[in-house]
Amino acid sequence: MTKSSLFKLVETVTSAPGYTRNVGTRVLMAEAGHVELALDRRPDLLQFNGFFHGGVVAGLADHAAGGAVTTAMPKGRFAVTVCLQVNFLAPANGEMLIARAKAIQAGSTIGVAQVDVISLADGVETPCAVATVTLRAVDMPARLAGETCRA
Amino acid sequence: MTKSSLFKLVETVTSAPGYTRNVGTRVLMAEAGHVELALDRRPDLLQFNGFFHGGVVAGLADHAAGGAVTTAMPKGRFAVTVCLQVNFLAPANGEMLIARAKAIQAGSTIGVAQVDVISLADGVETPCAVATVTLRAVDMPARLAGETCRA
Amino acid sequence: MTKSSLFKLVETVTSAPGYTRNVGTRVLMAEAGHVELALDRRPDLLQFNGFFHGGVVAGLADHAAGGAVTTAMPKGRFAVTVCLQVNFLAPANGEMLIARAKAIQAGSTIGVAQVDVISLADGVETPCAVATVTLRAVDMPARLAGETCRA
Amino acid sequence: MTKSSLFKLVETVTSAPGYTRNVGTRVLMAEAGHVELALDRRPDLLQFNGFFHGGVVAGLADHAAGGAVTTAMPKGRFAVTVCLQVNFLAPANGEMLIARAKAIQAGSTIGVAQVDVISLADGVETPCAVATVTLRAVDMPARLAGETCRA
Repeated sequence: MTKSSLFKLVETVTSAPGYTRNVGTRVLMAEAGHVELALDRRPDLLQFNGFFHGGVVAGLADHAAGGAVTTAMPKGRFAVTVCLQVNFLAPANGEMLIARAKAIQAGSTIGVAQVDVISLADGVETPCAVATVTLRAVDMPARLAGETCRA
Repeated sequence: MTKSSLFKLVETVTSAPGYTRNVGTRVLMAEAGHVELALDRRPDLLQFNGFFHGGVVAGLADHAAGGAVTTAMPKGRFAVTVCLQVNFLAPANGEMLIARAKAIQAGSTIGVAQVDVISLADGVETPCAVATVTLRAVDMPARLAGETCRA
Repeated sequence: MTKSSLFKLVETVTSAPGYTRNVGTRVLMAEAGHVELALDRRPDLLQFNGFFHGGVVAGLADHAAGGAVTTAMPKGRFAVTVCLQVNFLAPANGEMLIARAKAIQAGSTIGVAQVDVISLADGVETPCAVATVTLRAVDMPARLAGETCRA
Repeated sequence: MTKSSLFKLVETVTSAPGYTRNVGTRVLMAEAGHVELALDRRPDLLQFNGFFHGGVVAGLADHAAGGAVTTAMPKGRFAVTVCLQVNFLAPANGEMLIARAKAIQAGSTIGVAQVDVISLADGVETPCAVATVTLRAVDMPARLAGETCRA
């Protein structure tokens, strides 16, 4: 797939009605094996202490990993998460979360991505989590195949 | 702490304005070392394929683990997640998610919980994920200490 | 496969020349989806502090998980580890390590096992680690297929 | 600590009688937050298929992580593993394994290291595993404190 069709694929999945759209996930970058997502601080995404909730951090990392591995896989394959591992390094207390995922494996059945999650405050990036995500390949859902063919 | 004050502590954290309240998390059970949470299917919690998003599953497991370990720790200590590991076993496509967390370690500095996440459909429970969560102990935030003292 | 041929399969892999034989791994039990292994304390398996080294604990858990998932998979399939997660709960300072693995998923491509690792000292069992292991299915190596056919 | 005393500390732990010495672990590099270890292929470290056993790969990654985090912590603190996560990417079938660990967190109670494990064959490096290791700080064992003071 061309770079723009990969971007379109990730954006279609991300902006479909549901969780990722609801929390305001934006696709900053998507090319084969690399995906960068962001979401802005909102009261409904935080814990009682004012930091982004761990589930929001984990969800952003997971979604970015799925994009990075899917875009690195052969056309027609789609990656779904098998095993998600997140290490929380610092409070995610910035005004924006950014997840940068890189596929380090994208075989015919299994893919693995490493993800850095950044908390952005006043223009300063603080690493707040790292994730390693293991995914398995399934056939691309027909609906998404259709979307990307139009690209 | 008495059983009811433990329940109150978990409920206070869970129902505080923010992510867990936003996604509709309910506390089904909370006693020392065991916490059970649930949330109902809603369009804004799903992926494009109609299953609960992995971030929602991971967030529920993480939150339940935090409750299970905090309630097992000495009074005045609060558990925050260091390392979250989730294995997804089956599509979370029911009308409700339930997370059952059990503390298997609750030392002075480190705690560990194992969590079973269940997808409930037509009264049938299907295991959809397991998680192992490692947490570290910090001092109970003053605000929560206050809440629980009133219990 | 019958129970005895499953035991034979696990024993053949475990007692083949190499690491597991070298560290003295014994198969205590092997049936479909459940495998129990043990090894005895020896100076060359310890850390400087006299506890079993983390690598030895992880290796025993990994091997037990491989057995539990392989024995639960369809005949002719063999499970290899994709992702190994081990939480260390207490010093492994007994005279024997026992790993008890249970397959909680054994699909056509992916399997997952949970493992409890026990340190045995003076007849008392202390949980020293838990592991969750994700594996993928490959074709049974010809050599092992041959071994098990003879059973 | 000076660079040479850090190297001496890692070497003392690694070459003490026990597992790491038994499997032939060598310290290639050790400075604050970075440790590189290697071990050579030997029949007693392999699986039935001729690859390094997962336990040997995991043990090397774990040990390298312990070194990387301990050398990054304040003097007098020692890191012990809480949670070990290893993703296996390719068969470890070379003549040497190399583990390169980097501390990405080294706080007063918790440290985290990321590790790349390489299989070296005919001068070519193949990534065969990545690990993320979470450790907690304990007081440096007296024996090691003594060793390093002599350095």
